[in-house]
Amino acid sequence: MNIKFADVSYNVEHALDLIKRSDARLIVLPELFNTGYMFDSPEEILAFAEDKNGFTIQSFLRIAKEKNCYITGGFAEKERDKIYNSSFLVGPEGLSGIYRKVHLFRDEKKIFSPGNLPLRLYNIDGFNAGLMICFDWLFPEIARSYALMGADIICHSANLVLPYCPDALITRALENRVFFILSNRIGKESMGDRILRFIGKSEIVAPDGDVLLRAGTDTEGIFEAEIEPSMARDKNITPLNNIFEDRRCDIYSEKILKK
Amino acid sequence: MNIKFADVSYNVEHALDLIKRSDARLIVLPELFNTGYMFDSPEEILAFAEDKNGFTIQSFLRIAKEKNCYITGGFAEKERDKIYNSSFLVGPEGLSGIYRKVHLFRDEKKIFSPGNLPLRLYNIDGFNAGLMICFDWLFPEIARSYALMGADIICHSANLVLPYCPDALITRALENRVFFILSNRIGKESMGDRILRFIGKSEIVAPDGDVLLRAGTDTEGIFEAEIEPSMARDKNITPLNNIFEDRRCDIYSEKILKK
Repeated sequence: MNIKFADVSYNVEHALDLIKRSDARLIVLPELFNTGYMFDSPEEILAFAEDKNGFTIQSFLRIAKEKNCYITGGFAEKERDKIYNSSFLVGPEGLSGIYRKVHLFRDEKKIFSPGNLPLRLYNIDGFNAGLMICFDWLFPEIARSYALMGADIICHSANLVLPYCPDALITRALENRVFFILSNRIGKESMGDRILRFIGKSEIVAPDGDVLLRAGTDTEGIFEAEIEPSMARDKNITPLNNIFEDRRCDIYSEKILKK
Repeated sequence: MNIKFADVSYNVEHALDLIKRSDARLIVLPELFNTGYMFDSPEEILAFAEDKNGFTIQSFLRIAKEKNCYITGGFAEKERDKIYNSSFLVGPEGLSGIYRKVHLFRDEKKIFSPGNLPLRLYNIDGFNAGLMICFDWLFPEIARSYALMGADIICHSANLVLPYCPDALITRALENRVFFILSNRIGKESMGDRILRFIGKSEIVAPDGDVLLRAGTDTEGIFEAEIEPSMARDKNITPLNNIFEDRRCDIYSEKILKK
């Protein structure tokens, strides 16, 4: 998606239009796709922050029921006096849940509170999906946590500006043998003389590292692939190597779970 | 390096010849560079397995003293009735230590015992180096452990046959902000009708993901880059993001350190 800064009704309608053209069972939208990204302060984004009863989630709840599909995407979430960089997951049966971005990038720290919800998985047709947002990709522990919890698919809503993530997700998919669905925005935003260019390259990566599709750097659209999620249940990378059973927790440093 | 199967004296002499042409302070050789790879049984490799008093380590101890440098590389290590897929690190002051491969790949499980030594770092000119071998790359916990223990450089001796690792190490370097030095062999080996082709692509990757050099798929030689190891001490990826301080151990699953 390309996104109009601070124009929620346009962005939501535009996403709905794209979704109407798709028969996908699971649709992933970018981070903060309804508001845009470069807000200067919590006060500035507050007017666009919503909760589960807000315009954005209610709009996608309706279309998820109509089209009998699951949709996840990022939005600015308001809870009491806090604002989170969040993503929702809605499906035919209603709101599955909300993820709050755990690792905030740069100036997001001045605007959002860090995610405070435990990681959890959502059931889609008997398979398990986890949500993460943009900069979370750099920390191997998030995808690892989801995979060890039983994730088959990780939905990754992003506003990437650095070039590394699309290739890094091949590593993340391989090391966990899960599907990755990256939805990244295109276009640019500016604030004063600071310009952010979003790199696009939305992609779907299979548990064997195969890039099933990768979009261009400036192409908007619905990009679809058919996947067989049960492939993520097979953790054998060779007849003699199961990537989970081969883990050597007796050798790894305990610092991995300590600050 | 290209390697002659089961010809230790040739391989060691050949590695020494290559090293004599280099003025590097730290030299990384491939996995099992002195013996070759495709042994069929522990009995078959036993004749080529050595300990710290063996021909291989003693040869590199001498040249490390002569040339005032550090050298690490892989060898089959014999300890009592066990054989390990190991790597040594020698320097001007003697044998720094031995690493035993923690994650064995495929048929290695029929030949070698899995590594049983705690992870540790070695001091090189005031910087910290960790050792890992080939398939260890797939498990993010090894490089993460070393990085959290204070590693600046990870020396990776390999006999890679799958295509993923050279790109994956860019992710490993970025997520830990450490240097990676991958030394992979070239050429092929066969046993019966099974052929392994080793992919080469030895490389040095900087903590910012920059690939300082990458060798070809079939080029033997000494490939050198000058690095500033202190770069690995700076864990700030943006003025507001320190990749270690940003970790959210309160959120990650405890399963990361449990089988």
